[in-house]
Amino acid sequence: MSSFGQNYRVHTYGESHCKSVGCIVDGVPPGLKLTEEDIQVQLSRRRPGQSDITTARSEFDTVHLQSGTEHGVTLGTPIGLLVQNKDQRPHDYAETDLYPRPSHADYTYLAKYGLKASSGGGRASARETIGRVAAGAIAEKYLKEAYGIEIVAFVASVGKVALPFAEEEDEVLGKEYMDLVNTVTREQVDKEITRCPHKETSKKMEEAIRAAKAKDDSLGGSLTCVIRNAPAGLGEPAFDKLEAVLAHAMLSIPSTKSFEIGSGLRGTTFPGSIHNDPFIEGVDSRTGEQTLRTSTNWSGGIQGGISNGEDIYFRIGFKPPATIAQAQSTARYDGSDGVLAAKGRHDPCVVPRAVPIVETMAAIVIMDMVLQQNARKATASLLPPLTHLPPTMVLPGKSTVQAVVNGKDVGEVQSQKVGEE
Amino acid sequence: MSSFGQNYRVHTYGESHCKSVGCIVDGVPPGLKLTEEDIQVQLSRRRPGQSDITTARSEFDTVHLQSGTEHGVTLGTPIGLLVQNKDQRPHDYAETDLYPRPSHADYTYLAKYGLKASSGGGRASARETIGRVAAGAIAEKYLKEAYGIEIVAFVASVGKVALPFAEEEDEVLGKEYMDLVNTVTREQVDKEITRCPHKETSKKMEEAIRAAKAKDDSLGGSLTCVIRNAPAGLGEPAFDKLEAVLAHAMLSIPSTKSFEIGSGLRGTTFPGSIHNDPFIEGVDSRTGEQTLRTSTNWSGGIQGGISNGEDIYFRIGFKPPATIAQAQSTARYDGSDGVLAAKGRHDPCVVPRAVPIVETMAAIVIMDMVLQQNARKATASLLPPLTHLPPTMVLPGKSTVQAVVNGKDVGEVQSQKVGEE
Amino acid sequence: MSSFGQNYRVHTYGESHCKSVGCIVDGVPPGLKLTEEDIQVQLSRRRPGQSDITTARSEFDTVHLQSGTEHGVTLGTPIGLLVQNKDQRPHDYAETDLYPRPSHADYTYLAKYGLKASSGGGRASARETIGRVAAGAIAEKYLKEAYGIEIVAFVASVGKVALPFAEEEDEVLGKEYMDLVNTVTREQVDKEITRCPHKETSKKMEEAIRAAKAKDDSLGGSLTCVIRNAPAGLGEPAFDKLEAVLAHAMLSIPSTKSFEIGSGLRGTTFPGSIHNDPFIEGVDSRTGEQTLRTSTNWSGGIQGGISNGEDIYFRIGFKPPATIAQAQSTARYDGSDGVLAAKGRHDPCVVPRAVPIVETMAAIVIMDMVLQQNARKATASLLPPLTHLPPTMVLPGKSTVQAVVNGKDVGEVQSQKVGEE
Amino acid sequence: MSSFGQNYRVHTYGESHCKSVGCIVDGVPPGLKLTEEDIQVQLSRRRPGQSDITTARSEFDTVHLQSGTEHGVTLGTPIGLLVQNKDQRPHDYAETDLYPRPSHADYTYLAKYGLKASSGGGRASARETIGRVAAGAIAEKYLKEAYGIEIVAFVASVGKVALPFAEEEDEVLGKEYMDLVNTVTREQVDKEITRCPHKETSKKMEEAIRAAKAKDDSLGGSLTCVIRNAPAGLGEPAFDKLEAVLAHAMLSIPSTKSFEIGSGLRGTTFPGSIHNDPFIEGVDSRTGEQTLRTSTNWSGGIQGGISNGEDIYFRIGFKPPATIAQAQSTARYDGSDGVLAAKGRHDPCVVPRAVPIVETMAAIVIMDMVLQQNARKATASLLPPLTHLPPTMVLPGKSTVQAVVNGKDVGEVQSQKVGEE
Repeated sequence: MSSFGQNYRVHTYGESHCKSVGCIVDGVPPGLKLTEEDIQVQLSRRRPGQSDITTARSEFDTVHLQSGTEHGVTLGTPIGLLVQNKDQRPHDYAETDLYPRPSHADYTYLAKYGLKASSGGGRASARETIGRVAAGAIAEKYLKEAYGIEIVAFVASVGKVALPFAEEEDEVLGKEYMDLVNTVTREQVDKEITRCPHKETSKKMEEAIRAAKAKDDSLGGSLTCVIRNAPAGLGEPAFDKLEAVLAHAMLSIPSTKSFEIGSGLRGTTFPGSIHNDPFIEGVDSRTGEQTLRTSTNWSGGIQGGISNGEDIYFRIGFKPPATIAQAQSTARYDGSDGVLAAKGRHDPCVVPRAVPIVETMAAIVIMDMVLQQNARKATASLLPPLTHLPPTMVLPGKSTVQAVVNGKDVGEVQSQKVGEE
Repeated sequence: MSSFGQNYRVHTYGESHCKSVGCIVDGVPPGLKLTEEDIQVQLSRRRPGQSDITTARSEFDTVHLQSGTEHGVTLGTPIGLLVQNKDQRPHDYAETDLYPRPSHADYTYLAKYGLKASSGGGRASARETIGRVAAGAIAEKYLKEAYGIEIVAFVASVGKVALPFAEEEDEVLGKEYMDLVNTVTREQVDKEITRCPHKETSKKMEEAIRAAKAKDDSLGGSLTCVIRNAPAGLGEPAFDKLEAVLAHAMLSIPSTKSFEIGSGLRGTTFPGSIHNDPFIEGVDSRTGEQTLRTSTNWSGGIQGGISNGEDIYFRIGFKPPATIAQAQSTARYDGSDGVLAAKGRHDPCVVPRAVPIVETMAAIVIMDMVLQQNARKATASLLPPLTHLPPTMVLPGKSTVQAVVNGKDVGEVQSQKVGEE
Repeated sequence: MSSFGQNYRVHTYGESHCKSVGCIVDGVPPGLKLTEEDIQVQLSRRRPGQSDITTARSEFDTVHLQSGTEHGVTLGTPIGLLVQNKDQRPHDYAETDLYPRPSHADYTYLAKYGLKASSGGGRASARETIGRVAAGAIAEKYLKEAYGIEIVAFVASVGKVALPFAEEEDEVLGKEYMDLVNTVTREQVDKEITRCPHKETSKKMEEAIRAAKAKDDSLGGSLTCVIRNAPAGLGEPAFDKLEAVLAHAMLSIPSTKSFEIGSGLRGTTFPGSIHNDPFIEGVDSRTGEQTLRTSTNWSGGIQGGISNGEDIYFRIGFKPPATIAQAQSTARYDGSDGVLAAKGRHDPCVVPRAVPIVETMAAIVIMDMVLQQNARKATASLLPPLTHLPPTMVLPGKSTVQAVVNGKDVGEVQSQKVGEE
Repeated sequence: MSSFGQNYRVHTYGESHCKSVGCIVDGVPPGLKLTEEDIQVQLSRRRPGQSDITTARSEFDTVHLQSGTEHGVTLGTPIGLLVQNKDQRPHDYAETDLYPRPSHADYTYLAKYGLKASSGGGRASARETIGRVAAGAIAEKYLKEAYGIEIVAFVASVGKVALPFAEEEDEVLGKEYMDLVNTVTREQVDKEITRCPHKETSKKMEEAIRAAKAKDDSLGGSLTCVIRNAPAGLGEPAFDKLEAVLAHAMLSIPSTKSFEIGSGLRGTTFPGSIHNDPFIEGVDSRTGEQTLRTSTNWSGGIQGGISNGEDIYFRIGFKPPATIAQAQSTARYDGSDGVLAAKGRHDPCVVPRAVPIVETMAAIVIMDMVLQQNARKATASLLPPLTHLPPTMVLPGKSTVQAVVNGKDVGEVQSQKVGEE
């Protein structure tokens, strides 16, 4: 099913050559200021043709709001929106149609549906992501206004060129990398056409991409994404742990290969005594209130599947684009051997354009979790206060549980005075 | 919500010290032979106390079927099942309760719920996985009987000790590793107490675990899991791509840090010309029929989010267990500094016991996808045949789409004779 | 959430004065011939301005397919579609805006969202049903082609004018009414502008509607809907019984007040000895095969929440439209008393236009249930045959269960030979 | 799927002769005082053997909490609970097994699953409702404590004996009936063994039931249920209108035939000028605050699918039990004619025992809607206030929308000061 989310729910439609691609976004809170411009920003960062290292096709991808707002304010009802496809004709037959493209969706769509869109993978087209980017842009707007949440993704590697993740063998992740995670802004990211905000690395990435392009080849890479100022308490135990839903969201982006939360796979090579994040007293970055913080953040802001108020960061790998102009030896549908060379202009490397897709998918996940947690908190807050709970169930040495529930949010879990047992 | 799956749906309940843990499994096909023994096998592989490198606690975790079968056959109705908890008393107060355990769920559960189970993380306990393992064991039984599907997970790394993933810098993954992926059996895996079927590596892992244990420390690691004989066509485009749902399932297992499909993050460092999987004519391993195969399998058996009939394999990272007996400097709930040392016996390394959890979660995902795809195929198969579709939409040069829809499955998509256009 | 269905899932968007109303339909089987004309038929039967007893506004409600088909055939991917709104301006302020309209959604939308579309109820507008009618028209097309399923709704009462449901006090429902249920066609229904296919009653209804209109008043009424040729086995035990989901679907149509399956409330006044439907040997109307039938059908084709192969019929009540031109004494938003008289042209009676809405919602329900049941049947059919089940679990005296699973469907539940016990 | 609800989600399992029946309840707010006694109350009102006009079997149906609470307080995690079945043996073969019981689920379960529980309908057994009653009892506890919500159901008719719904032809519903709706308590209901709180009618019902029992026959009937003190704003526009979800819930109870909201089918015979509910200034019954009320309540407390703060009431019809000891002419599975007479003791009339089932299903629906609405309100409340919205979108003549959002609830939609336009 082409839907994502429980309480903030996105449904998308559209193939590469149909009339339009679009989505319905359900669960947008009423009273949010919202115009097409708010959504267009991320669609424009996503669209092809932004620099000479991405595909040369240039589509404007202008969003058209259909419903759910009036006078620039959301009504709380579903938001329909769409982007016209420029090229709406079914695909003409070509000699290349005798081949299922290697590592593409042509073959699997036939296996799944028994027939396919004439142009190949249909919904596997990157244009399918337009709906999600738009839906996520709405979520971002809310999260920024209501919680001050910032979501920033940046390119961390292209082919074999990577950021300095660690300077020393024995450190989990290095200072330079963690500084980027903790402070980098979208403006800094967009300054580089690679969207890698580390100038030196970016230059090498650019060279690598141009070299691949010159050879009619393609390159993969990876992105890091950080979510700042998310309140503690997001994520549902068991199946819908925050990192699990983030992984689901990220691996649903075309061409993704891997997801790592916090210290990731590298973190698994360190012992618990180093990897654990000790608690310290600190200040909530969002509310300025005193609260428990952690002195390191190898957990990536999530413990037991639930956010702890620290920065949530993760890294996503993208494979090299499957469509290359280089000739490939591969079988035709009928099993006979042949040689396929793709025509047209293709992205030699998709990771720069993936930045807004990753950010907006992250926003959709956080928005959904915020709604789920607010339902719980607001509903629990209406119960009469509890007394005489044993101190192992609440905050030892404190009379209420409020202190750890951070921030200014309404619907705080009710004060629970703990008597002596 | 503590539910997973759309058509094969698992709901779990239970904390570490409540009466029992269990689940309801909905969507089990009627007519499957099923006894408690079928389920017990994987529960016994999961339970603590299996060797001296896992926790010394020994619980038997005997499953009790409550409903959904009669005379050893499933009725098609929900299956309720449970495992008694041995220690059902709420936790007694101890000095350690002044501390939220570092990298544990104590703090985040308080932030989420405003109160917590006296023993700490509640649902974050590894005992929560019992329900899923049971539900997945049922799915495994079906998949084996109906499709001949085999699911095998094995330990790929412990701390810094890892399998030889590649022998050469310039190969995506090496022959030795891919041979394991392609052929290893559960019997071979269970021969080693580390559950790493590579004898030499296993020995080093064992030493590393014993060394960590001696220092009251813990180690992380990673698992590789392979699904063989899954039919092509599984996975839903857009949000529920097969790898996305697998990532969701795997990252919902406690302590997981990363998920990689196929060639994973390493694959992203290679150019498209090497990473693409060319098609070749071959034989379906399950049905013996002629079909298209791929000569390499860096895609991990999934293209465009849909299975292509090759082996589906992925790797999952697990962090070192947060509970260590070593003293840790960390703040108390009230913000004051202190030193915490955990008591009791703990797993120095969880990855050997994670093997059946990973396998059964994989089975749940595949089972769900099988039901979704069978709904589509059986429903589409009742439509009258189509004629005169352009050859770009069906199989060029063939008169039907049947050839690529593999296997003996009923509900095949209807023959679509393509005329000349 | 604005979604309906599990496997055939409809998501709608749109208010009365936004740019367009529309929907995304997910789960449409691939390979179904489908054009905009197929959908337009039911939209045209739904639209205002069809006769002088409905509202005089005339909107054409032309559907525009956005995705999911190529060359007139469904791809199996989500179908996006929309209908432009003619009047897209926000509502101008008027004196009537001081009043929440009695029995309308103005007040409750404010209570729910804190703000509302300027024109009033927003999503409570009858235009919201356009998306569902379109989605249901697609389902109807499939059900007709694959199963020969016919769905016909007709007007059963208007105000106090009703069809002769029973001629005698002591009969559950009368022959004349049941004949309509069993045989009436859409053509016969559309011959009368009231859409009551009983000429004599229709004439009285017309008079009643004209009389109400002359008094600036409105009339309610009821519809009967019948689904013919649905296979046995549809509906999910416990919560998603077929009649429960039908009731959900029907009560989600604006202005509905009641739902009755089969003999309905009247049936509850008869004793079991009369109300039970005895089994008889008969012929499956769809397949022509010998099968068990029932001699009466007070169950309305559903027993234990599951279809039994007989006609499924139910009746839905609609309240008189809340918007009337007659002056009404009612409070303003500020609590002060006043008199409200609606302007503009309104339907004095909505039941004739409700006919296609009821039919298409019924089609959505049946389509969803067909997909769920086909998933189960096709999946179960791959299991090896069972032997030695006790005769109380299968068909006593028969060697397989096939005989009662009706029809030509693929994915039949596997032959289960029962041995002697 | 055996699940109900979006945010308050109930999953049930169990047939009549398996080990136990039970459920998992997900979404219970943390911090609610809850013991087994709280749940037992409604289970005991539901169980067989309460009077000589219900079945003589006597089962105690003692509930066992498995998880989700500690020290008598909910943790916010899933609550597992179960009730042992007394008779856990599969059914022995009898001559009656040659027959599908008329109007029972034997035949349809075979059609659906291809095999069935030996005792017949399996999940169609009334014991399936035990899980829901337990889950609903938890919801009732919360709703009472947090909102003061009262839910009371009572028997409205048995066979042809009915409450005086209206005294005059031209009144929608009569004073005597509406007084019951507005004021009747569970204590008053339980005083009569028929659970009809109208003494005179109850007496006639009792006679009717005894007469039916004497003839080995059965009687149907109907229940009215009222929900008092529900806040305005519950229910989701379009598909999940409050009455639609209530209808779904009620029609999912075994043996139900009809659902009517408010004035119901009778209301459809009156013109809009009488049926509309005019607004008046009044006092919120729950909070004591000044608010808009309606002078009549034919809407049944719901307008546009959303609660308006008035009493929500509806009526549900139940068919006469299908199992009767009277001989019935009906075909055997093999199509041959025969005569079937049920053995054992059966309820001649189920409506008295249906009272707690209806109440608890209603509680589940309201609880789910409360969570959904609280998610929206709490989330929207964090947005900055809006200014300059046109008066048609907010409350004309008031500076905020607060006035109509009733009550003491936290998470109130933010003040929206409306400027001049």
